[in-house]
Amino acid sequence: MLHVTHKIKKMSKLLQDITSEFAKLPGIGRRTAMRLSMHLLRLDTDSVASMARSIERFRRDIKHCRHCNNLSDEEVCPICMDSDRDRTTICVVEQVADLFSIEATQQYRGLYHVLGGVISPMQGVAPSDLKIDLLMERIAAGDVREVILAISTSVEGETTLFYLMNRLRQYPDVKVTSIARGIGFGDELEYVDELTITHAIMNRREL
Amino acid sequence: MLHVTHKIKKMSKLLQDITSEFAKLPGIGRRTAMRLSMHLLRLDTDSVASMARSIERFRRDIKHCRHCNNLSDEEVCPICMDSDRDRTTICVVEQVADLFSIEATQQYRGLYHVLGGVISPMQGVAPSDLKIDLLMERIAAGDVREVILAISTSVEGETTLFYLMNRLRQYPDVKVTSIARGIGFGDELEYVDELTITHAIMNRREL
Repeated sequence: MLHVTHKIKKMSKLLQDITSEFAKLPGIGRRTAMRLSMHLLRLDTDSVASMARSIERFRRDIKHCRHCNNLSDEEVCPICMDSDRDRTTICVVEQVADLFSIEATQQYRGLYHVLGGVISPMQGVAPSDLKIDLLMERIAAGDVREVILAISTSVEGETTLFYLMNRLRQYPDVKVTSIARGIGFGDELEYVDELTITHAIMNRREL
Repeated sequence: MLHVTHKIKKMSKLLQDITSEFAKLPGIGRRTAMRLSMHLLRLDTDSVASMARSIERFRRDIKHCRHCNNLSDEEVCPICMDSDRDRTTICVVEQVADLFSIEATQQYRGLYHVLGGVISPMQGVAPSDLKIDLLMERIAAGDVREVILAISTSVEGETTLFYLMNRLRQYPDVKVTSIARGIGFGDELEYVDELTITHAIMNRREL
């Protein structure tokens, strides 16, 4: 069914265009693209026009914060601008979505640094493709006391973690920590993988 | 996680806008909306602008064919315009996507009629909400010899089928048929539901 819309010569040009455009998005095949297109007909013209404008404007105007690489409307993002944040702590994350997951907890008051991915020789991502030098510059500036590495536990994530730890060794006064690994709240032990359980037992806490 | 982006006061306005817009689409939650937004940053500005234009133009300019209710750029759709199609046969489908599935086979040479849904008292869809009167007008015009009902086998589909059969009885010269039900090619008997198997055995063919 993937190529249904390709085979149909007598299809509305407008419908062909929009399904091709939607199908450019990740995880959206031709069939879902058609379903999304049909849904647009249930929305009023103004709200679809506003959707179109948001898409174009986002791509054209969005910036990366020149300090932390977070997405931003200005040169510096709202978090880096906020004078209430603790400027001695930087939490390093892979991507912007991770930053928002941490922000949603409303518990972390430090700054962030968005790497923009993880080191992956397989996918051709070298350390120089990530915002690592920018992180080092921020630390070299001297205010930072702690760097929290909140990187995923994939093979690429671990590679990135070790690379960062090596680079950070040149600042012995800066504490380097990693977010705690363990059993998530609400997770049932029965379904948790062995590595996580092993780690959780080794790092048990006295009550 | 559903409300992550709502809680973040210090998020880029552009990013907030676009994730809200994507989240209006069916089956797309906040998290997927964020993933789609991030993907736009990997496309060039022009191709995102072209996506935005297609979305706006589609909603603004698409029409429904005044004969068969298919989506169309003009008042009459390309299929109804095509003088090579057999005008004595109409295949009735629920939605435009069904029409394209049949067109993809390149076997059917008649015309279509898109109902725009099925009768569903539960969802408040009455016969008058569907393009049934338009179908009757086409048949009343006199050229039609056969109406093929290609309606799904859901409860609502069956209701719609019986309703249509009743309405069509006033044209005794018009043959009314339904698409064949049976075991699909490639389906394994082991996994086919009982109703389909029962039907397939009752309607067995001599070889």
